Amino acid sequence: MPLAKRSDYGDAKYAGASVDFNEDIEKALQAALLCGFDFIVTPLVHPDYRPPNPGRSEGHAPGQLTPPFKRHEVLYLPSSARVSQVVGSVSTWIDPDSENSLLKSQSVTTLKQQIAWAGHLGLQAVLLPAVPQPMKAAHYSQVVQQALNGLTHMAIWLTVPLSAEHHPSSDSNQLLSAPQNGSGALTAVTVQDPWEWWHQFRAMTDYHNLLGCCLEVGATLPPPQQIERWKGEPIKSILLPTKVFSSNKRGYPVLSKAHQELLVMFFKLRVQVIVIGPRLHSIPEQERTVSTSGSASDHDGPPGSQEHRSASRPSNMTLANFIPVAESANGGFTIHNPGEDHELRSYWEYLCFLFRKLEPLPEQDRLEQDYQDYLQAPLQPLQDNLESSTYEVFERDVTKYSQYEEAVYRALMDRVPDAEASTTVTTLMVVGAGRGPLVRSSMSASKRSGRCIKVYAVEKNPNAVVHIQTMINKEGWENQVTLVYADMREWQAPDLADILVSELLGSFGDNELSPECLDGAQRFLKSDGVSIPQSYTSFMAPVTTHKLYNDVKNYKDLDHFETPYVVKFHRHYLLAPTQPVFTFNHPNQADPIDNNRYARLNYHRDPSAGSAALHGFAGYFECQLYKDVTLNTHPPTMTPNMFSWFPIFFPLREPVYVPAGASVEAQIWRCCASHKVWYEWGITAPCAGPVHNICGRSYYVGL
Amino acid sequence: MPLAKRSDYGDAKYAGASVDFNEDIEKALQAALLCGFDFIVTPLVHPDYRPPNPGRSEGHAPGQLTPPFKRHEVLYLPSSARVSQVVGSVSTWIDPDSENSLLKSQSVTTLKQQIAWAGHLGLQAVLLPAVPQPMKAAHYSQVVQQALNGLTHMAIWLTVPLSAEHHPSSDSNQLLSAPQNGSGALTAVTVQDPWEWWHQFRAMTDYHNLLGCCLEVGATLPPPQQIERWKGEPIKSILLPTKVFSSNKRGYPVLSKAHQELLVMFFKLRVQVIVIGPRLHSIPEQERTVSTSGSASDHDGPPGSQEHRSASRPSNMTLANFIPVAESANGGFTIHNPGEDHELRSYWEYLCFLFRKLEPLPEQDRLEQDYQDYLQAPLQPLQDNLESSTYEVFERDVTKYSQYEEAVYRALMDRVPDAEASTTVTTLMVVGAGRGPLVRSSMSASKRSGRCIKVYAVEKNPNAVVHIQTMINKEGWENQVTLVYADMREWQAPDLADILVSELLGSFGDNELSPECLDGAQRFLKSDGVSIPQSYTSFMAPVTTHKLYNDVKNYKDLDHFETPYVVKFHRHYLLAPTQPVFTFNHPNQADPIDNNRYARLNYHRDPSAGSAALHGFAGYFECQLYKDVTLNTHPPTMTPNMFSWFPIFFPLREPVYVPAGASVEAQIWRCCASHKVWYEWGITAPCAGPVHNICGRSYYVGL
Repeated sequence: MPLAKRSDYGDAKYAGASVDFNEDIEKALQAALLCGFDFIVTPLVHPDYRPPNPGRSEGHAPGQLTPPFKRHEVLYLPSSARVSQVVGSVSTWIDPDSENSLLKSQSVTTLKQQIAWAGHLGLQAVLLPAVPQPMKAAHYSQVVQQALNGLTHMAIWLTVPLSAEHHPSSDSNQLLSAPQNGSGALTAVTVQDPWEWWHQFRAMTDYHNLLGCCLEVGATLPPPQQIERWKGEPIKSILLPTKVFSSNKRGYPVLSKAHQELLVMFFKLRVQVIVIGPRLHSIPEQERTVSTSGSASDHDGPPGSQEHRSASRPSNMTLANFIPVAESANGGFTIHNPGEDHELRSYWEYLCFLFRKLEPLPEQDRLEQDYQDYLQAPLQPLQDNLESSTYEVFERDVTKYSQYEEAVYRALMDRVPDAEASTTVTTLMVVGAGRGPLVRSSMSASKRSGRCIKVYAVEKNPNAVVHIQTMINKEGWENQVTLVYADMREWQAPDLADILVSELLGSFGDNELSPECLDGAQRFLKSDGVSIPQSYTSFMAPVTTHKLYNDVKNYKDLDHFETPYVVKFHRHYLLAPTQPVFTFNHPNQADPIDNNRYARLNYHRDPSAGSAALHGFAGYFECQLYKDVTLNTHPPTMTPNMFSWFPIFFPLREPVYVPAGASVEAQIWRCCASHKVWYEWGITAPCAGPVHNICGRSYYVGL
Repeated sequence: MPLAKRSDYGDAKYAGASVDFNEDIEKALQAALLCGFDFIVTPLVHPDYRPPNPGRSEGHAPGQLTPPFKRHEVLYLPSSARVSQVVGSVSTWIDPDSENSLLKSQSVTTLKQQIAWAGHLGLQAVLLPAVPQPMKAAHYSQVVQQALNGLTHMAIWLTVPLSAEHHPSSDSNQLLSAPQNGSGALTAVTVQDPWEWWHQFRAMTDYHNLLGCCLEVGATLPPPQQIERWKGEPIKSILLPTKVFSSNKRGYPVLSKAHQELLVMFFKLRVQVIVIGPRLHSIPEQERTVSTSGSASDHDGPPGSQEHRSASRPSNMTLANFIPVAESANGGFTIHNPGEDHELRSYWEYLCFLFRKLEPLPEQDRLEQDYQDYLQAPLQPLQDNLESSTYEVFERDVTKYSQYEEAVYRALMDRVPDAEASTTVTTLMVVGAGRGPLVRSSMSASKRSGRCIKVYAVEKNPNAVVHIQTMINKEGWENQVTLVYADMREWQAPDLADILVSELLGSFGDNELSPECLDGAQRFLKSDGVSIPQSYTSFMAPVTTHKLYNDVKNYKDLDHFETPYVVKFHRHYLLAPTQPVFTFNHPNQADPIDNNRYARLNYHRDPSAGSAALHGFAGYFECQLYKDVTLNTHPPTMTPNMFSWFPIFFPLREPVYVPAGASVEAQIWRCCASHKVWYEWGITAPCAGPVHNICGRSYYVGL
């Protein structure tokens, strides 16, 4: 039973529970499901199981003939009906990198054995224990890579402590006494940062798309800037030990404010939670039967508190018969649900409480969910004619067209004094008019300002032109709006324009060739004429995005690594704040006009944020339509409720390890040739790499 | 005319001269050839040439319509007959990364222009000036990568100063005042190390195989450990400015001891020298006509000195009519060669002198020249039957078989006291006898020791067996040698052996499955029996080898990056001393026998050696045949004059930048399955990378 019926946070609504090894796992699973959990995590083999010590007198490959498991030693599922509700966990005693050769050999054997068994059962995922020795898990990761090599759908999840002090073998002296040779090999910094353990492990497994991680939360949390890094990583679950909870005054398990915020952050990333460990918080018997109405005043929101109850049920209910209203089988209140006796029930209820408290996702975000972290090729509107439905989607962006209307309104007000309002006719040309939305915005601005305008609507798509004609006829604008079927770069205008209005921007500002189009159109702009937009600037930041890197890699060719994509980033982390890249101003007074650009961007990272992985660059723009009327996708200044543009993603061919405190230096070019425009990009720090898309060999925009 | 007729140092025998821009370049070329040089380096355009400042009123791509060169502005070759003797150099004033936009734009334009012109002429190489701004050459390298993208055979050579202080824009204050942000981006270390400039440049050009470098030597040299790094890089020429020479007491140009050693080092790598700059050393007129016989006593060896003359010509010759005897057109002495008047003649003579002084390359090295830096797939003698000619080549290794004879001799002497020499018959089994060389060595040892032996020659290749039979008959060994046509792992021996002799080692020791074969054969070894070899250990070191990296990359697939190769390393540099990897002992007393191995190797580098590029690992072995009789390919202990094994090369998929002072941590596994054995390898420092050849997916040795 999910934490709530709401679906706006995706998989985050599912919660799992760890269950001890159990010969009758179906029963244990049933109990957990009845309690409210959606799946369980349970050991693949009995904790006492050890593979036999190889002792044959001859042979090349110890472990090859490991005898089969016995029924009682192993997680046994009589039917495959339940496999999607069980995650198998590998024995936590393993240490494939141990100096002890017996332990090492048994670890390797059983790791292979257990993954193979999970695969045999058809489980969807296997949970691996955390690396026993920080930064010394080469052998562990090699065995896992070997296993991954043979897998097609079962995922492997590595447990990673969020903080080094919660590492099983943790001994801060040991960690601190790690060799500090300044070599980058095993410094105290890397040994104490579990992100480094994860990174080493996944780099050795070649960023395999079936390898994910489960972050185990401890009692104390690392600083926020270190937690941020995980947003771009493939986190499959949060492991939440019962010991991390404290008790509220009535004995119910509750989380600290910081832990609550952490969970909320991961809920928003659609990460599910797994409660691990035994019940440590026992609710006094009287509490379970006595009404608590009005007696609670804590505001950290444990189940049974005022805040909690009022959010989800009548305050005169007892906790004992509390099950979330929405999921109640008969739509009302049950008298007794056997799931309430489950030892982890109060933890599950707390998760329900936290999850239900999340503010509802805005409508627009909900609509865009399907596009999150999904690669799209940028449009080429200059080369290709758009379909009607594409125009239609963009026309729905009310915010954007309001801004255009406002920009035209201000320009009209500035250019025409009140005294001349009725006599002066302003010539306005909409270049790239599409189906006409900017004509409509301009006409509204004209009406609102009381300034007369004469509009030329220039459009090169013969199909779109039909819609404009319809609009003109329907609105009765025949005397004011002239429809021109032409390419703005070639049209011989009969008149000069006061205002040139266009909407040619792409996700990276200039990437749909707005500069080239407007340079071609400014021939028919008066010398004191105004272009709307007046200018635009692209912005870029280094980004971690494991998901997108893997999606690009999945194409298995160079071309896809040398193509920028339009992407709604979700699971991502910016390694440093954005920096401005290229700016274009219109009309462009330069002679000759040169739309080639080059930028060298040095991103300094906060050393306390730790190391991070770099998969490429996220790009945005800021556009000045007219004076302070703007359209911005750049996060710090983003125009609210505007959805016409997703950001852009420039991938790198190989993930780059960025050590703590290191800078990222990016180089990016906008290159122009007679029939195409393209970007080239590369990095020169923390280490130099190849320039991508040289000569536009993999990607370009046709002129 | 080459520096000498000797060919043992390859291209090093060719020397070039820089020639100023000249409208009649054929005449200048003729003069240089007559002087003795083999080619010239000359500017592609007049030093005063600047591309026109783009000033068109419209257009997208400035430079696109750059007007053609005029005849007098440009290097002009009326016919293509001479193109192989001319290297074109690009204007040294260029700075494509300049902050000055005019200079930047002109630089980019002319760089493209000049490379295109050189390509048009059909030159074999273009020499680029050094990067004008250390670690700030992204734009320069991007334009070069664009040019490389369109080239198929013309090489591009980047000038790189050997020492930062000789950098054209050098100003040590400027270099030292570079930002030191500890970020790895632009530290003083990287800014002051020209290797870093080269590395950034070639990394951004994606390690293109047509990009090489020309090292410009200055008056002072960097420390030897920094020079060493260049041995693995694609150095196309040494640029030797005349100003680096000093004058000996008679005015002749001579080099310091350190510079001589530097040149010798590069000669040995087959790197040619180009003398650049004007004549700065004028030989007094009397010196050019007066005999210097007996008057010189300097030992630094300038032309005209006692040492120089005695090495190549009668000491009573005057310098004026000195031309190298061997190349003299009529085989004798000419009275006056007009080439002697060439302003660089005395420098060329000095190079002749230095080159001729090189000790002759040993016969074996000369034979192996064709194999240098050439990738070979390792043999699979267990799976495939070798050809007769392959056996034949290996049988020529006199040293190897002498060592075997000595090992058998010592074992026989140890096992059989003098008193029993005539009565005890030692049973010796040669497993993998091939065409019989070990049978012969064993018989020689028997004869020399006076110990009687009975030999079983076991061989699985039915074709090789014919040769053994022939040998037995020819030598009359029918009573002592029994030929067995069988696989040693399956043969049912009629007898137990005292001594088991085999030669199953590969370039990495165990890589041709000696362990598996001998484990299978030790069934028929007496409990106190001896295996020759008794043990072997592999060794490995991180290596720079640009040539091999490019050869592997050229296959354009993953498989070739996951295959170890047999290679005679030549242009290579070990980033750190070798370390032992895997050891096998025979007979193997372990129960069960486990031939799986794993090693984690931490290579610490001398921080003063600077940064370096890592392309993979070089592997060697040491083999103990019997007690202190060894066969070693491991450089520090190498068995002299043995040629049966070249080292092994484990490539990495991507070149790795190893910062100054950083360690390299390697992981390598020997993995055994029922029908195959393979290696997996990867690195965990300076940054973690994927395990290569997981599950033997790209390469394995069949059992």
